[in-house]
Amino acid sequence: MKSTMPDTEDNRLKLVRFVAQEVAKDRKIPHFDRTAVLEILREAQRRAGRRGQLTLRLRELGGLIRVAGDIAQEGSSPLVTAKDVLDAKRIARSLEQQVADRMIERGKEYQTFITTGAIVGMVNGLAVLVGDNSIAEFSGIVLPIAAEVTPAQAKQGGRIIATGRLGEIAKEAVENVAALIKKYTGEDISNHDIHVQFVGSREGTEGDSASISVATAVISALEEVPVNQTVAMTGSLSVRGQVLPVGGVTAKIEAAAELGLNKVVIPRANLKDVLLEDKYQGKIEIVPVDTLSEVLEVALVGPKKSGLISKLAALIPKMTPDKPGPSAVPH
Amino acid sequence: MKSTMPDTEDNRLKLVRFVAQEVAKDRKIPHFDRTAVLEILREAQRRAGRRGQLTLRLRELGGLIRVAGDIAQEGSSPLVTAKDVLDAKRIARSLEQQVADRMIERGKEYQTFITTGAIVGMVNGLAVLVGDNSIAEFSGIVLPIAAEVTPAQAKQGGRIIATGRLGEIAKEAVENVAALIKKYTGEDISNHDIHVQFVGSREGTEGDSASISVATAVISALEEVPVNQTVAMTGSLSVRGQVLPVGGVTAKIEAAAELGLNKVVIPRANLKDVLLEDKYQGKIEIVPVDTLSEVLEVALVGPKKSGLISKLAALIPKMTPDKPGPSAVPH
Amino acid sequence: MKSTMPDTEDNRLKLVRFVAQEVAKDRKIPHFDRTAVLEILREAQRRAGRRGQLTLRLRELGGLIRVAGDIAQEGSSPLVTAKDVLDAKRIARSLEQQVADRMIERGKEYQTFITTGAIVGMVNGLAVLVGDNSIAEFSGIVLPIAAEVTPAQAKQGGRIIATGRLGEIAKEAVENVAALIKKYTGEDISNHDIHVQFVGSREGTEGDSASISVATAVISALEEVPVNQTVAMTGSLSVRGQVLPVGGVTAKIEAAAELGLNKVVIPRANLKDVLLEDKYQGKIEIVPVDTLSEVLEVALVGPKKSGLISKLAALIPKMTPDKPGPSAVPH
Amino acid sequence: MKSTMPDTEDNRLKLVRFVAQEVAKDRKIPHFDRTAVLEILREAQRRAGRRGQLTLRLRELGGLIRVAGDIAQEGSSPLVTAKDVLDAKRIARSLEQQVADRMIERGKEYQTFITTGAIVGMVNGLAVLVGDNSIAEFSGIVLPIAAEVTPAQAKQGGRIIATGRLGEIAKEAVENVAALIKKYTGEDISNHDIHVQFVGSREGTEGDSASISVATAVISALEEVPVNQTVAMTGSLSVRGQVLPVGGVTAKIEAAAELGLNKVVIPRANLKDVLLEDKYQGKIEIVPVDTLSEVLEVALVGPKKSGLISKLAALIPKMTPDKPGPSAVPH
Amino acid sequence: MKSTMPDTEDNRLKLVRFVAQEVAKDRKIPHFDRTAVLEILREAQRRAGRRGQLTLRLRELGGLIRVAGDIAQEGSSPLVTAKDVLDAKRIARSLEQQVADRMIERGKEYQTFITTGAIVGMVNGLAVLVGDNSIAEFSGIVLPIAAEVTPAQAKQGGRIIATGRLGEIAKEAVENVAALIKKYTGEDISNHDIHVQFVGSREGTEGDSASISVATAVISALEEVPVNQTVAMTGSLSVRGQVLPVGGVTAKIEAAAELGLNKVVIPRANLKDVLLEDKYQGKIEIVPVDTLSEVLEVALVGPKKSGLISKLAALIPKMTPDKPGPSAVPH
Amino acid sequence: MKSTMPDTEDNRLKLVRFVAQEVAKDRKIPHFDRTAVLEILREAQRRAGRRGQLTLRLRELGGLIRVAGDIAQEGSSPLVTAKDVLDAKRIARSLEQQVADRMIERGKEYQTFITTGAIVGMVNGLAVLVGDNSIAEFSGIVLPIAAEVTPAQAKQGGRIIATGRLGEIAKEAVENVAALIKKYTGEDISNHDIHVQFVGSREGTEGDSASISVATAVISALEEVPVNQTVAMTGSLSVRGQVLPVGGVTAKIEAAAELGLNKVVIPRANLKDVLLEDKYQGKIEIVPVDTLSEVLEVALVGPKKSGLISKLAALIPKMTPDKPGPSAVPH
Repeated sequence: MKSTMPDTEDNRLKLVRFVAQEVAKDRKIPHFDRTAVLEILREAQRRAGRRGQLTLRLRELGGLIRVAGDIAQEGSSPLVTAKDVLDAKRIARSLEQQVADRMIERGKEYQTFITTGAIVGMVNGLAVLVGDNSIAEFSGIVLPIAAEVTPAQAKQGGRIIATGRLGEIAKEAVENVAALIKKYTGEDISNHDIHVQFVGSREGTEGDSASISVATAVISALEEVPVNQTVAMTGSLSVRGQVLPVGGVTAKIEAAAELGLNKVVIPRANLKDVLLEDKYQGKIEIVPVDTLSEVLEVALVGPKKSGLISKLAALIPKMTPDKPGPSAVPH
Repeated sequence: MKSTMPDTEDNRLKLVRFVAQEVAKDRKIPHFDRTAVLEILREAQRRAGRRGQLTLRLRELGGLIRVAGDIAQEGSSPLVTAKDVLDAKRIARSLEQQVADRMIERGKEYQTFITTGAIVGMVNGLAVLVGDNSIAEFSGIVLPIAAEVTPAQAKQGGRIIATGRLGEIAKEAVENVAALIKKYTGEDISNHDIHVQFVGSREGTEGDSASISVATAVISALEEVPVNQTVAMTGSLSVRGQVLPVGGVTAKIEAAAELGLNKVVIPRANLKDVLLEDKYQGKIEIVPVDTLSEVLEVALVGPKKSGLISKLAALIPKMTPDKPGPSAVPH
Repeated sequence: MKSTMPDTEDNRLKLVRFVAQEVAKDRKIPHFDRTAVLEILREAQRRAGRRGQLTLRLRELGGLIRVAGDIAQEGSSPLVTAKDVLDAKRIARSLEQQVADRMIERGKEYQTFITTGAIVGMVNGLAVLVGDNSIAEFSGIVLPIAAEVTPAQAKQGGRIIATGRLGEIAKEAVENVAALIKKYTGEDISNHDIHVQFVGSREGTEGDSASISVATAVISALEEVPVNQTVAMTGSLSVRGQVLPVGGVTAKIEAAAELGLNKVVIPRANLKDVLLEDKYQGKIEIVPVDTLSEVLEVALVGPKKSGLISKLAALIPKMTPDKPGPSAVPH
Repeated sequence: MKSTMPDTEDNRLKLVRFVAQEVAKDRKIPHFDRTAVLEILREAQRRAGRRGQLTLRLRELGGLIRVAGDIAQEGSSPLVTAKDVLDAKRIARSLEQQVADRMIERGKEYQTFITTGAIVGMVNGLAVLVGDNSIAEFSGIVLPIAAEVTPAQAKQGGRIIATGRLGEIAKEAVENVAALIKKYTGEDISNHDIHVQFVGSREGTEGDSASISVATAVISALEEVPVNQTVAMTGSLSVRGQVLPVGGVTAKIEAAAELGLNKVVIPRANLKDVLLEDKYQGKIEIVPVDTLSEVLEVALVGPKKSGLISKLAALIPKMTPDKPGPSAVPH
Repeated sequence: MKSTMPDTEDNRLKLVRFVAQEVAKDRKIPHFDRTAVLEILREAQRRAGRRGQLTLRLRELGGLIRVAGDIAQEGSSPLVTAKDVLDAKRIARSLEQQVADRMIERGKEYQTFITTGAIVGMVNGLAVLVGDNSIAEFSGIVLPIAAEVTPAQAKQGGRIIATGRLGEIAKEAVENVAALIKKYTGEDISNHDIHVQFVGSREGTEGDSASISVATAVISALEEVPVNQTVAMTGSLSVRGQVLPVGGVTAKIEAAAELGLNKVVIPRANLKDVLLEDKYQGKIEIVPVDTLSEVLEVALVGPKKSGLISKLAALIPKMTPDKPGPSAVPH
Repeated sequence: MKSTMPDTEDNRLKLVRFVAQEVAKDRKIPHFDRTAVLEILREAQRRAGRRGQLTLRLRELGGLIRVAGDIAQEGSSPLVTAKDVLDAKRIARSLEQQVADRMIERGKEYQTFITTGAIVGMVNGLAVLVGDNSIAEFSGIVLPIAAEVTPAQAKQGGRIIATGRLGEIAKEAVENVAALIKKYTGEDISNHDIHVQFVGSREGTEGDSASISVATAVISALEEVPVNQTVAMTGSLSVRGQVLPVGGVTAKIEAAAELGLNKVVIPRANLKDVLLEDKYQGKIEIVPVDTLSEVLEVALVGPKKSGLISKLAALIPKMTPDKPGPSAVPH
């Protein structure tokens, strides 16, 4: 079953009618004013997850409409307003969001990550909590990644050891990152073990959206170039260094903004999916990227940075066919 | 139970009678005109999966007949026409097709693969979505393969690392490709790790039909010879370089055409299974092949290409007994 | 419970009485003439699987009798004849046989194996489809084996990689073959990887009856000596090179004959189990063997063949005590 | 569902009302005097696990209230007092606590750990028994860690072998510690095996809170610098040497105090979670730390200590951004 | 529950009374004459498995009594005789025995083992079929063991590869044998792979009673000293070369005798468990042994034999304390 | 729930009353005389497992009381005496004990261990049968351990191979012993494989109480110093050589005494748990130890012994804080 529909005039009208129907069915709640209806439409856009689409999960939207109506009614308002819808959203947020809220709160309190200055081998990754698939809205959290490069324990060569209860896709993502690291370091790789720690992750970390964070942390640790701790990032990687799109970007960016981070790196292909709530607008700079080189350009600081990026760029082709990279030839 | 019957005059008549029976049984739907009956016969050929056969899955065909009838009736047409059958096909398409449709749409939107120019280490593979076995019609998608060759992490020798949640048959297919790569590279293989990434694949990739894509991507990465991104391909491989037949070729070719690719490489043994819908006719060139050398002849571009193919051809015997290859001797 | 009884005059009479009882019980079917009864007896011999025995699976035989009766009755014959029994056999064949029929048909159509000329590293193995154990009659198929010898990927030594979804017994059979290969190649083995592919096998290949095919394909690939593609073979191997008996030889030989192969190699101990249907008589030469050397004598072609076989024969003792081999001493 | 609420005047009043309601509902138990109510509030703080919060597990608190009431009633007291609440706590303690009590008792009796003097390679770690998650109050135990460094058994390099039936998170914690040890020892690591024993642990040890104990024991064994046996410790570690917060600190500190230990090392981020019962106040010194260097400063004794710590400190950056460490640069 | 009782006058009388009771209970069967009762007593001894004991599995014995009675009654005999009991035994034999019977028959027919002459690397081991534990009487079969010694495939050292679907205990038994082989060969072991094949075993071979057969086959293959094929053997081994007792010796010896073997080697500790049926008496020589050296003394033939045994004996201490071996010193 | 209570005057009185109640409840059994009551108290001490405690498993004790009563009643005794209680114990013994009895009996009969003289690489370990946890009384058996040291099969280094179907804890115990062995042997360890065999163990050996036996057997085999076969032993080990307490010491000592062994080595911490039945008093010498050096002092014999022990003692610190060992420094 389709979960979204195009954001056309026609479909918007359907949603406006849906709001009216829900009000009629409930019988007790007041009518929605124009601001409230617009807020519902806006929420339908957000929950679609991609620009130009409206969510089709009407049951969930119906729940939000009724809760907003109850709030207005309790306050004896004659009409439901945009404010009631925003309040309702806060009340109706899913269990995943509550868990994420507590993790964000706990994160602030316990300082397992830093949001100022620059540090070697530490990156502020972003993740979404994996919950019931039927819930359209993701809940973002900051998931710090720590990396360390050590002498190899085995004489027969190095290993990459990743901790944080990684799931299958996450383990494969670390393998993909390894391809880039080995290409970058050359033969020297076999004298080192590389440790990657998903700090504070205990419940099974899944997905490949931390790939660029892992790559950045490891390269920082290898070269002892500090990472800017005011930057957060999310993005998958191909074994050839291209940054590939991921899910849940809006939720991730909002989580980063909430924690006071200044910049967030995302895959260029996800730029069209960003639909921030008003309160986060302008609070965080969004940097779209195509390759790992561009990620490091944003994330690293200090004197050794530019040499490192030149070295890496030589290994990574541009992906966009309009702007062909070094290994793209005319056909 | 047999799932197909020979495409004889007799069996065609049986299907015509079957259409009439279904119409009679339903009572509400109009009769089928000649174009509609021919379209049903054509669909019965397509769903058989092999030329010269008609599908025997009459229950599924019956569903299609009834939906076409409903469409004509809703439009108050006196007769069901070929157009109604084609519309019905679109409505009645299976869940697999819907998922594939969205993946194709998403693929276009997110650019995880490129359809112009040439790039090193990237190949546009083709796959079918694995669904309920009872549904005869496959749904094709483009599954890009990325490869990278790096220094070996272990001093004791190289490894081949394949990611994309591969199933057992797919893992074995990568092992079979490895035989060819090791033969091709000689002793040097033990100084390199080879990474193969089924880009964007997360749900368990199964089957061996990506074998020639994997082999092409790895050889491209090894030799830094670019791959033509307007070419798609599908085919299994023997450990001795012969291209073996695969399933779902029609659906795969149509998916490639839909995405604007120009050429598609398929196993010669599958040529007889190609039954494109009219709208794809002439939109994509189909190149049948017998050996991996022929695949590379079509897929690679640039100056290093011909030396590479000569080297490989020396290692791969022709399979067809009529045209005996270098290692075939008279008996 | 015993599944066979000796093929004595007494037991034959019991079966004749059994035919009469079944006819009497059914009431509607005509009596069996002498040719029909003889055909049933012949079938009881075939289904016993071993010469000198009659099957005791009377329920299955009863089914065959009733179907033959129905065929005669439909044709309004006054008596059931041998032809009716043969027709009934074709109708009553088990699901396994139908699957095998389609695989044989598909094999002819797709050419995953070759039946003329000679090729290096390819052997036409034979297998039976594993089905419900209660069905006495096996269904044979040709299962091609491809082998390739490559430089070792790991510096620490070679590996043997077998693909085709092998079951436990099949994997162990490959290990047993490995013993012979290592003995044959000597220390050089540690510089090579050996790939063995059960071509087109996807459903879990089980058993050790492909052992001599695997050994032949690997030795052919190692020495680049072509294998005669008109020969099929089946047989297990001891780690010391003796050919051990296997199951289902009749069905395997018939499948090879059906596909136009000229010769079939089987373990000498199985010679007594061969009970071909008349239509296959004389269409295929059966070569019984005791050791791997004898297998290669039949299967290989070309100038390097005889040197290779001498080298192997020196490593393999004869097994038969009456004709003691090089390492058998008087006691 | 939230499990705690802020420790505000408002929320305290809610708990006072809750005590009254429980008394009213029970009908048989006397009223609570002021000391008893304060003790309940204090318990609500303790069970929240974090300072500034009150537990919301009212059902468990209700059980405690009723048991305290029963005790008072049995003693025919006109009012429930603080003493009754404390007695009730002892009676109502969970199964986990009883198991821990016995382990503590057994620990005293069997001397699997030492609480005086200093010994090489032995550290008094602290753990909590993992029980039903719904029970807010943890039960602490002393879990001694023994480490030994030996020549590597394998020529190809050293291994880290950890015993004590470790769960997944605990195994990963040992991997994280390994990163630090390898960094500390340099290339020499590949000539040694490192054994880590969670002494007396048999039921599956889980979690990463023993990380600093493991690191301390191994470094002590490596350098033959004795560990002060009057010190206990708990804390997780990042692969870069930062001490990360853990759970159950109060219970762990109380267990250490109970067994006569003098000092306990905890993560600085957990300092705010310490809420000792009065009887443990002043009996044990609490040392908050940020990095592994600070842990060793407290735990090690003897002449080699200071050189070792200088060496380690050079490898570990400070984490707190206000006091930037060696690898933190201005941004 | 005890499964045997001492073979005292008292207990024999109890069994005699038991026979009488069974006859009385059945009402239809005749009385047992003296020979029949003695045969029952003799069977009770055999089923105890150890000399000087009588079985307590009265339910099974009761079944035998009733079947013997039925046979006598059918034959209208006035009394049950020893012959009726022996006939009943044959009828009442367990499913395991029937399977074993067919395996023995098949073994004779297919010649997977040899019973005359001498061959390198082949040993006639003995096994019992593992069936329902409640059935006291074991069923013996000959299980041939083949061994081959080859150059090591891995440069990093040799492996021992055992095939025949071994269970856990059987795999460990092979490991124990490996200790002796490594001790025997010295450092040279790391240049060889050792293959051990339990020929024809497909259903999961369990137990350690083939240990001496495996050791004998491997040493024969290593030194190219032929094994006498008229000898069968059973026995477990300690890693120091002592032969340890096993189960089912009587059934194993009878199976060997049945197949025409001349000698059988058993652990000395099992000598007291041998209770052959009359028909096997004197047909096979039983050689009890204490150490592996004594096994080889019996099993090997040819000129190299005595040097080999001297070499081995120096490595294996005698176990019996009365006759202390080289490494036993006074205490 | 507590399983024991302190052995105070008060609690003894409770047990006396319990005996009276059980007698009263049963109605048919006679009263217990003073000797019988004392025997019950004594049994309650034994079943507590630790000195100074009485068991609280009253249901089991009740069963013993009733059986003793029945015995007295059957013998028409006016009172139950100590003898009746001892007889009842023998009748009421658990299934575990019966299995152990048979193993002990079988052990005597089959001589898998030796109880006189001295032998290299063989140690008489002690174990308890693991049964239903609710049964307080353990059943001891002698579990011989054999060790052998051989050249390493793998060139890359040695392995420790332990057989006897070890459970997880037992495998970890072998790893802990390995730490000591590697420390003891130094770099030489990588040229040897070490085999440890739990002789005759087939059902899954669990626990770490054989640690000192394994260490003793391996060191004996390494140095070819004989082990006194009149000594049995039990005890766990830390990776630093301290002997740690184990369970079931009384049952183990009694089993050793039963089999005629002279001495038994136990952990000093378990000394207080020894509560032998009268019949074993004085039959076996109990030697409590703190470190592995002390174990070897008791167990080894011959001229090389003292050098070996000096070497080991230098590696193992004393654990008792009052008598600080070489690596314990003042704090």
